[in-house]
Amino acid sequence: MRVLILGGDGYLGWPTAMRFSGQGHEVCVVDNFARRRWVEDAGSNSLTPIASLDERIKAWKEVSGKEISSSVGDIAEGTFLADVVQEFEPEAIIHYGEQPSAPWSMKSVDHAVTTQENNVIGSLKLLWAMREHVPEAHLVKLGTMGEYGTPNIDIEEGFIEIEHNGRKDTLPFPKVPGSLYHLSKVHDSHNIHFACRVWGLRATDLNQGVVYGIETPETKLDDRLLTRFDYDELFGTALNRFAVQAVIGHPLTVYGNGGQTRGFLNIVDTLQCISITAENPPAEGEFRVFNQFTEVFNVAELAEKVRHAAGELGVDVQVDHVSNPRFELEEHYYNPTHTKLLELGLQPTLLSETLIESMLGVIKDHQDRVIQDVIDPVTQWRPSPLNEPAA
Amino acid sequence: MRVLILGGDGYLGWPTAMRFSGQGHEVCVVDNFARRRWVEDAGSNSLTPIASLDERIKAWKEVSGKEISSSVGDIAEGTFLADVVQEFEPEAIIHYGEQPSAPWSMKSVDHAVTTQENNVIGSLKLLWAMREHVPEAHLVKLGTMGEYGTPNIDIEEGFIEIEHNGRKDTLPFPKVPGSLYHLSKVHDSHNIHFACRVWGLRATDLNQGVVYGIETPETKLDDRLLTRFDYDELFGTALNRFAVQAVIGHPLTVYGNGGQTRGFLNIVDTLQCISITAENPPAEGEFRVFNQFTEVFNVAELAEKVRHAAGELGVDVQVDHVSNPRFELEEHYYNPTHTKLLELGLQPTLLSETLIESMLGVIKDHQDRVIQDVIDPVTQWRPSPLNEPAA
Repeated sequence: MRVLILGGDGYLGWPTAMRFSGQGHEVCVVDNFARRRWVEDAGSNSLTPIASLDERIKAWKEVSGKEISSSVGDIAEGTFLADVVQEFEPEAIIHYGEQPSAPWSMKSVDHAVTTQENNVIGSLKLLWAMREHVPEAHLVKLGTMGEYGTPNIDIEEGFIEIEHNGRKDTLPFPKVPGSLYHLSKVHDSHNIHFACRVWGLRATDLNQGVVYGIETPETKLDDRLLTRFDYDELFGTALNRFAVQAVIGHPLTVYGNGGQTRGFLNIVDTLQCISITAENPPAEGEFRVFNQFTEVFNVAELAEKVRHAAGELGVDVQVDHVSNPRFELEEHYYNPTHTKLLELGLQPTLLSETLIESMLGVIKDHQDRVIQDVIDPVTQWRPSPLNEPAA
Repeated sequence: MRVLILGGDGYLGWPTAMRFSGQGHEVCVVDNFARRRWVEDAGSNSLTPIASLDERIKAWKEVSGKEISSSVGDIAEGTFLADVVQEFEPEAIIHYGEQPSAPWSMKSVDHAVTTQENNVIGSLKLLWAMREHVPEAHLVKLGTMGEYGTPNIDIEEGFIEIEHNGRKDTLPFPKVPGSLYHLSKVHDSHNIHFACRVWGLRATDLNQGVVYGIETPETKLDDRLLTRFDYDELFGTALNRFAVQAVIGHPLTVYGNGGQTRGFLNIVDTLQCISITAENPPAEGEFRVFNQFTEVFNVAELAEKVRHAAGELGVDVQVDHVSNPRFELEEHYYNPTHTKLLELGLQPTLLSETLIESMLGVIKDHQDRVIQDVIDPVTQWRPSPLNEPAA
């Protein structure tokens, strides 16, 4: 299968590229290195020292004997992406090529505009390129569980049957996303749904939970194959950030009371989910939504798990409840369905103390690279002290 | 009240500017004349000969003694809009400044991208400018009934209470829009909802039906105050287009069987709704949605009404059922709620035979301006013959 991976130089994109290549698929990676630039512009870095894309591809060839091709450019600019799609003729397109940080999107009007322009227009151009050149291809789009927000009812996978005034319909699950980044993903989902309904494209929208983990079987093969690992306030996600904080002796930064509950999954399960999804494409015109996570935790629980695992290694960790920079409920109902990937064969890798200890060990190897002053939350969701969100 | 009108040179924008100015409000019009350019680029024109914005403003001063100020620029570009907002300090912002045509958005990837970029990024910049400079101002945003699509349940005004697995929540009404233009409005609605929830802005999202009519009390005062009137396949809407077709002896172009049912309103009721909305602002942080139309018709009924009215004037009109260029259901349930504007005092101007006859009369005065070859539908929703939409 010819697999095009947009954002294939990123945290998940690069391991995904190696996974498909290792399975014998023909892989082409597209990236414009925006993530590397954004992290550098924020004064931060990847905890893991990462090779350039060219070096990665060369190392992968040495290690596996397999070729990955690449095309460097911006998917939202001109006809770059359409040209790549026309030439490579992918059968599956894995789309990670978006600005992925909620706080980054909330920093300023320019950050907000860049996020929605890059994400929405990039995906819209992809849909149009598929319509013109590969209408049979399968789009595997990375969305986020954050599209749903935290409604007071069970979250279904993309669609919900609504009974109203004696009539019924099955409609898209209503979205109440929590940042301008999350909104960009909601916009994408609506556009992709349209492209399936009207143009007959086929797509799977993966509403992914928060990903944690630093290694996959492929990244362990050679130091040049490491994937990036972010720990700063902008690009670091909850568990990854806590693990780095624990290693360097920084108090764990729990936002508010830490009752915010979210779906989580291990990076190795992301790879599993993407493979399973690509192996089971939807029908022509079908728009599928899978909720992609394996476990639900609240932030305070996660911090406690990290504190405990670090304690087992003899490291004493403090948990700080810092003023919440985001606008979100800290106590809420949360019960999202996530059966579709399990039905297709996903074998969850659950979060264990052993796993956290192993993460802490790898982080320790690189701890001298940590830039301390990008860790504490600075980016505020709101311009000035306003009221707390209503419960 | 200081009222900023984005898109104030357009079909609805210009009459709205005169209405608020006539009521004694301080009005500033923003436009970049994109609509004039898009119509010209399509080889079409306004049926009514329209004066330039400067000429309009001068004529309005002569006729009413009142000043309207203006600022020419693109709301999606740079800091133009933020600068205008900072300087004018509006208390109400009426936002018509969007690409308003569904078929135009479906013509090509460039038209699609321009539509979503202009509409979504323009509105996002507006929200950010409000947050920074006028957080107390009231945003009156023109949305469309087309955001909802044609679900098999009653359409509520923006939000619906959903009972699911024994729990309840009131959530945004799910959207299944029918074009990339309609999608841009759905994206706007989600962004505006967020800005109210998180930044405490106040906004009313007016999901407007199809507007018809050629005159308002203000446009009749002087020929230089006429508003534009489009009749082509891109910018002409159903009743307006049919009325022109009737006058020039062109068969009425009903798409498919004409069972497509929509909400409609007279242009004078648009002005009434906007005024009522502005006079009754929402609370801080409140995001209101009003469904703005007065009557529901299907397209075949509308054509029949025009045919009948023309017949009364001695004109014999033929109705053609042309192959539907759009992707939409031609038979469907449609029962949208529209009580909120009525509760605030809207007095509907219903569609009468007299009104159609009067429209036909005005059109007759300008019929020599009609460009014949922009009338028939050319823009297709789908790239090639695909299946019909499922019922």
